[in-house]
Amino acid sequence: MLENITSADVKGMDADALNVLCEELRNKIISTVMTNGGHLSSNLGAVELTVALHYVFDFPRDKVIFDVGHQCYAHKLLTGRAAEFDTLRKRGGLSGFPKREESVYDCYNTGHAGTSISAALGMAKARDVKGEDYNVIAVIGDGSFNNGLVYEAFNSLIPLNTNILVIINDNGMSISPTVGSMHEYLEILSDDSGKKQNRHPRAGMFEKFGFKYEGVYDGNDVQSLISVLQDIKQRLKHESVILHIQTKKGKGYAFCEDNPEATHGISDEGVSPAKEEYSEVLGKTLCSLAEKDQRIVAVTAAMTGSLGLSSFFEKFPGRSADVGICEEHATILCAAMAAEGLKPYYAVYSTFLQRSYDEIIIDICSQNLPVTICVDRAGVSGPDGETHQGVFDLSFLSPIPNLTIAVPKDTDELKEMLQFSVNFSAPLVIRYPRECRHKFPSNSKVEWGKWDVLAQGDGKAAIIACGERAITRAYSAAKILKKSGISPKIINARFIKPLDGAMLDGLAEDHVVTIEDNVCTGGLGSLVASYYAESNKSVKCFAYKDEFIEQGGVEDLMDDYGLKVGDIADYIKNEIG
Amino acid sequence: MLENITSADVKGMDADALNVLCEELRNKIISTVMTNGGHLSSNLGAVELTVALHYVFDFPRDKVIFDVGHQCYAHKLLTGRAAEFDTLRKRGGLSGFPKREESVYDCYNTGHAGTSISAALGMAKARDVKGEDYNVIAVIGDGSFNNGLVYEAFNSLIPLNTNILVIINDNGMSISPTVGSMHEYLEILSDDSGKKQNRHPRAGMFEKFGFKYEGVYDGNDVQSLISVLQDIKQRLKHESVILHIQTKKGKGYAFCEDNPEATHGISDEGVSPAKEEYSEVLGKTLCSLAEKDQRIVAVTAAMTGSLGLSSFFEKFPGRSADVGICEEHATILCAAMAAEGLKPYYAVYSTFLQRSYDEIIIDICSQNLPVTICVDRAGVSGPDGETHQGVFDLSFLSPIPNLTIAVPKDTDELKEMLQFSVNFSAPLVIRYPRECRHKFPSNSKVEWGKWDVLAQGDGKAAIIACGERAITRAYSAAKILKKSGISPKIINARFIKPLDGAMLDGLAEDHVVTIEDNVCTGGLGSLVASYYAESNKSVKCFAYKDEFIEQGGVEDLMDDYGLKVGDIADYIKNEIG
Repeated sequence: MLENITSADVKGMDADALNVLCEELRNKIISTVMTNGGHLSSNLGAVELTVALHYVFDFPRDKVIFDVGHQCYAHKLLTGRAAEFDTLRKRGGLSGFPKREESVYDCYNTGHAGTSISAALGMAKARDVKGEDYNVIAVIGDGSFNNGLVYEAFNSLIPLNTNILVIINDNGMSISPTVGSMHEYLEILSDDSGKKQNRHPRAGMFEKFGFKYEGVYDGNDVQSLISVLQDIKQRLKHESVILHIQTKKGKGYAFCEDNPEATHGISDEGVSPAKEEYSEVLGKTLCSLAEKDQRIVAVTAAMTGSLGLSSFFEKFPGRSADVGICEEHATILCAAMAAEGLKPYYAVYSTFLQRSYDEIIIDICSQNLPVTICVDRAGVSGPDGETHQGVFDLSFLSPIPNLTIAVPKDTDELKEMLQFSVNFSAPLVIRYPRECRHKFPSNSKVEWGKWDVLAQGDGKAAIIACGERAITRAYSAAKILKKSGISPKIINARFIKPLDGAMLDGLAEDHVVTIEDNVCTGGLGSLVASYYAESNKSVKCFAYKDEFIEQGGVEDLMDDYGLKVGDIADYIKNEIG
Repeated sequence: MLENITSADVKGMDADALNVLCEELRNKIISTVMTNGGHLSSNLGAVELTVALHYVFDFPRDKVIFDVGHQCYAHKLLTGRAAEFDTLRKRGGLSGFPKREESVYDCYNTGHAGTSISAALGMAKARDVKGEDYNVIAVIGDGSFNNGLVYEAFNSLIPLNTNILVIINDNGMSISPTVGSMHEYLEILSDDSGKKQNRHPRAGMFEKFGFKYEGVYDGNDVQSLISVLQDIKQRLKHESVILHIQTKKGKGYAFCEDNPEATHGISDEGVSPAKEEYSEVLGKTLCSLAEKDQRIVAVTAAMTGSLGLSSFFEKFPGRSADVGICEEHATILCAAMAAEGLKPYYAVYSTFLQRSYDEIIIDICSQNLPVTICVDRAGVSGPDGETHQGVFDLSFLSPIPNLTIAVPKDTDELKEMLQFSVNFSAPLVIRYPRECRHKFPSNSKVEWGKWDVLAQGDGKAAIIACGERAITRAYSAAKILKKSGISPKIINARFIKPLDGAMLDGLAEDHVVTIEDNVCTGGLGSLVASYYAESNKSVKCFAYKDEFIEQGGVEDLMDDYGLKVGDIADYIKNEIG
């Protein structure tokens, strides 16, 4: 019955039909994610909650905001998107996250943790200003609940004088198991005997912020959820409520229930990608360096495994910290440890690095502290779409004084850069994508601010590229150009900051092309163009155009957003010819 | 006795001597700040606390981190810096904030709110890793206490398994009176009868995070502080403690006690600067627009008055929100209100805009929502130094798709841009410094992405400048060049994004000079250089060099960090000559 179902259909269903619906939703989610990849276990856990929400509330008039968005698949299936659900996370298909552009039922786009309560408050405030009366609901997992934004939003509920419902979907997991005291607090609330009562004896923390607390409810029992939500719906006219539910991450699929971390996100190539990952090399190299150097410590924000640091954390428990989804805190923690003589490595995805921009500037760089930030998933990241592309980092990091930015051309060079980092006494970023598919022979050792010439060329054009993906495309363009008798110089721009001024000054070629896996504005191309601004050299930048990059395969997106190999080759041919 | 006092001297003092010392410190702070400007009332409130800390703890072996740093003056006076205290906030003089480069007694630089507890945890963790045993103390005001970083740090105390002391210096004020539920909670704790007891009946929220709570103590009573700190010092070996004290902001100086908001920061030109401020024009214009347009709402993060929005907040209480020092939350609140059809204006200082970089990208721009961000104190901001310069914004904002960036040349143009913004349906930043000292006649109305030619020139060189300070310097350079018979074109680059491509394409001049009140990398100059990267035009960028900019007068800093008028004139003369 899923194909044509609407939100309104759910309201007419009896208990049996609702159970069948949940089963169908679950099956559809499993079969789709096993083919397309996506967030499996978090979505499976939220099926009953979503059905109950649609039974009780009137969407799209009422608004529901899914924090991070890892649990919106059932919502999509119930709001007219079941027929096209097999396009999930594919180019041009349904997004894996809530998306306003996709449906009126998606009222606010999410992707990064902790934003839902602030957004719900904004929507509720807008409702009040407009004199309307719809309901606003934030659904947030216990992992996101660690983020400081939650506290900032809680803190402003009473001053904003508005009413919202916050549903804490508590499954004990972020991507890794949830850490931190707030998680312990949720556990205490869950373990208490006072379940399902209006005023929980220990819920004082939430009540101080102006919320009434309801909990703990079984989040996989659709009937009990419907009944409590019906009650809450009446109360939302005059008060704000926190509904605390417990769900089983991966509910209904034994493999997920048993492996919640591994199945949080499923790659479309299966659970274990075949290629070597940069994160593995990070983990191995750091372990070996840390054995010799007692100063080395590692910090992550809730994704230790995906960042390759599980073994490091096991081997050096006293010298590692996963602080939960708290990127700002993680950054300052590293700065302070460096101020006290340690050598901290902070590993983070490029897209989440944006969260601690101020702390990178003020805490790390203005104090010139030797923190190494290992930026993973840099560049286009694929099927997660707009909110997860790591394409801004070179641009926003370059303007920061005291910072060195290194970009390895392959995993061998990552290893070498990590070795280099140990005795480097200033802030350092090392930036790389997920997978290593190609390796290239070097002609020199890694040295601060020095580039490496990979191919000498015939002196007419030079390609300056950074990172494996860009260098791969430089070689592919060179292969095409060879047929026209053109042989460009290929330079591995190992450091984006500082640029290799000596090499740029000495460059004989009049035509310079840059390639990078980053937006055009402010990246390698901009830096080289600025360097040559007073000269007569022509600089052409191949980088991503000024648009948010949709979901899709990495190579396809690179082609379509500005890095097509044919275009690079054509450009050089035309310039020289 | 202040001139040669050391931290060790404090330990030998009896009660009378300590009181005299506090009096002397207070007098020194008042006399210095009235001459040099600076943070007055917060520093006056923390005198007794600082003396008590030096009496009990052993600095610099023990570490104290002052959140934001607005209360570190007494600490500076007690640590060998009294003799040079009259250089406070002056070029080359003592910083108004803690500064590692200045003294071993300053262990961690602060300037932005909420970082102290994270930093204390990092230092304590480093101590544990190194097997040392010093004490680590964070001193944080109730205003900073609203920031989400506090919650992130609290949440990781137990997992990090280390011990710190957090002193909450509660004076009921941020810069504006403190808002939010956490503040109410602190008030409840203070009002309770259970003062000065080991386990406060309502301190459960802190205890859930692993802290023992001590409070409330009179923070202006040095003897009582010494006694509780001596007790806590012993306990820090095995537990973490929160000490909650109440202080009077501006203590000991009647004018400050009565006017805590106006005297939070004292300008070196006195309490009321004489020139027109951009913030005044923002406030007046927004009020007049909001009377006609019900969609307009305003949001600030704890500095409503300094941003010029006090009257707006008074006139439209239901359409305004000060969310406390929570820039990320403020940004999302605006995005969500815009998603629901309102027209939000978020006013913020440039340096604090860095805090919500991720939310600007994801929540506002990737959803393409019509939020207007009014960025005040942009460019070099003067005596507050490195942590408060607003010189990165053009660089980090330019790479963001969907965003328009406008820079008014004077307050008249700010007014016009605000009128333009009302019907502009996409994300918009308007960026301006504090004071308007010069106005320039326009030759065209404000139109999206269009620049204005202020002086036609003789066709040899063009100066493209953005913002009042840069345009003033363009005119000054032109005045010098006139003596050599050279007359450059002067262009007001009203929009940094998008650039005025038509004007750039049509520019006849071979020599282009850019001027901006921003770092060189990624700003206007970089954008113009990139635009012309494939052409033969020579582009010379006058912008700030790649260093953190120290404290000093605005004009002096502009001269010394890259915008000297003589250099601009010389460059043009040499190029043309």
